[in-house]
Amino acid sequence: MPESSQVETERARALELLRNCSRVLLCGHMRPDGDCLGSQAAMAAVLERMGKSVWIVNPDPVQPQLDYLERDVRFGVFKGGDLPAHDLAVTLDFCELSRTGAMEQALRRTPSRKLVVDHHLFHGEPWWDASYVDMRASATGVLVRRIARELGVELDARIARGVFTAMVTDTGWFKYSNTDAETFAIASELVASGVAPAPIYSAIYQRNSRSQPLGVARALSRLEYSSDGRIAVVDLPLPAPGEAELPDGDDVLDILRAVGRVEVVLFLREVEGGQVKLSARSKSEFDVHRLAKGFGGGGHAKASGATVPGSLSEVRARILAAAVAQLDQAEAASR
Amino acid sequence: MPESSQVETERARALELLRNCSRVLLCGHMRPDGDCLGSQAAMAAVLERMGKSVWIVNPDPVQPQLDYLERDVRFGVFKGGDLPAHDLAVTLDFCELSRTGAMEQALRRTPSRKLVVDHHLFHGEPWWDASYVDMRASATGVLVRRIARELGVELDARIARGVFTAMVTDTGWFKYSNTDAETFAIASELVASGVAPAPIYSAIYQRNSRSQPLGVARALSRLEYSSDGRIAVVDLPLPAPGEAELPDGDDVLDILRAVGRVEVVLFLREVEGGQVKLSARSKSEFDVHRLAKGFGGGGHAKASGATVPGSLSEVRARILAAAVAQLDQAEAASR
Repeated sequence: MPESSQVETERARALELLRNCSRVLLCGHMRPDGDCLGSQAAMAAVLERMGKSVWIVNPDPVQPQLDYLERDVRFGVFKGGDLPAHDLAVTLDFCELSRTGAMEQALRRTPSRKLVVDHHLFHGEPWWDASYVDMRASATGVLVRRIARELGVELDARIARGVFTAMVTDTGWFKYSNTDAETFAIASELVASGVAPAPIYSAIYQRNSRSQPLGVARALSRLEYSSDGRIAVVDLPLPAPGEAELPDGDDVLDILRAVGRVEVVLFLREVEGGQVKLSARSKSEFDVHRLAKGFGGGGHAKASGATVPGSLSEVRARILAAAVAQLDQAEAASR
Repeated sequence: MPESSQVETERARALELLRNCSRVLLCGHMRPDGDCLGSQAAMAAVLERMGKSVWIVNPDPVQPQLDYLERDVRFGVFKGGDLPAHDLAVTLDFCELSRTGAMEQALRRTPSRKLVVDHHLFHGEPWWDASYVDMRASATGVLVRRIARELGVELDARIARGVFTAMVTDTGWFKYSNTDAETFAIASELVASGVAPAPIYSAIYQRNSRSQPLGVARALSRLEYSSDGRIAVVDLPLPAPGEAELPDGDDVLDILRAVGRVEVVLFLREVEGGQVKLSARSKSEFDVHRLAKGFGGGGHAKASGATVPGSLSEVRARILAAAVAQLDQAEAASR
């Protein structure tokens, strides 16, 4: 797919805005993830090397596993009121202004120019002055790296750590299907510029609490298979006194997904307030977004979730029945 | 560290052997791993593109999770007797001939030239005609990719799948400290040549048996911490009737290692014949090779193992005591 000249013009305008600004605000989305925070850290370093003043302001603080980025840049958290005075606001890793949560109104009020750097699909009317968007990029961090190159800013360790963090978190550490040749080529440059993958892996994935393994054991011990092993279901009640918490559900999802026969993982956790949180994952054509939508949730075809009122056993029965029906239906349709 | 001209000469000799041979035998080590098998697959494809006849013969068959390589090349298993007639034998991913097990005598008998392609340290007298060795390479597969370049053979999908398999298995999917800029640069070329990372990840890591999650649960539920949480110990008895097997211990090791406080993981599994298998892992300066050696085992500083006669509880007590003592000793020495 050749770049259209319209896209080229739009990107040229984005680079112009970056060249001509002097005080820049970098904004992230609610619960900013590694791609958002890493892209901000890298972009801040790029702009500071160009002599600009940079503020990062997000609706939510940095997750603990990404705290190493705070050694490179300061991540401000929006507390209401006005934003720091700036002439350019750059939003990274999202394109719906509503995703800035409490910051949205303050952003709309500012007379600054607006630039979007992102790799997501956008429906609706553009509200920005320029955009640097490529939906084929594995991460927004890839776009920041391209921007640095186009602005003539050389990689340094701070830029490299930010871009690396962005790419590894959005590609599941180079294993999702978005991991392309450009991602690996950039990773190579970043390592040459001073990034050490092993400590970053350790920081992101190896700082679990000591209750995590027993929490994983408690969850996995409740596993049942359905539909001839194609669906794996775990329903986890709130911990009884003395039982281990499960701070992070990803290990459970990963281990269930790694069973060869399993196509669909349904992980149901009882939460406070008489509700059940569903995390659904698919390894096949099964669309878990469709399943989750039926219970008021969202996500995408391979990973979706929902929060459903009801008791654990009742919600489990309803969701499992819906999943079995959807699987049977897909089966019938493919015959 | 500049390449010495001696190494250059040695590598030139290796390339000469590869250019001038016509019938080539590629030999792997016992229980060949992904680096060995992937390097063989890639080297076979390189040599076949040069018009050579190639046989792969290993002391053991291909592990099921790497069976996709068998679509590209045929992996023969040594059944005794003589080896296929050949003028050059290439050993990949090892340099001690004893690691070919039952094949060793047959290899010693053949009048063929011998070439070693490897990234391991070798002590002893060279027994080969030429070698292509670089201990800094993350995988032997990296050397096969360099050799292909030096021989002027372009990458194709078969070569790419082999080299990619070699690199991902020896770097723990790009997360160990050996993951360098060259590894990522080659990964980029390989993806551009037709390798899709996601299906290879799925083939290697997501074909577990359905008993695996319950086996993981059974193991993790036996977790105890020692030395203020710096040592994690799991002792897993043979499954009672109706209890789940644990086909693969890696999930257990990974989850224990991911606890922030944990420095040393001791995973003890009761095996048939009144023995206990230790898998020890270190996240710190703690040298698990030293620990395992004290129980007749081996490995390296970060990952070692041993098979110890005795009951599970008795072996657990002895190994844990030794680990605590070694930790205390290191502590005292660092003060």
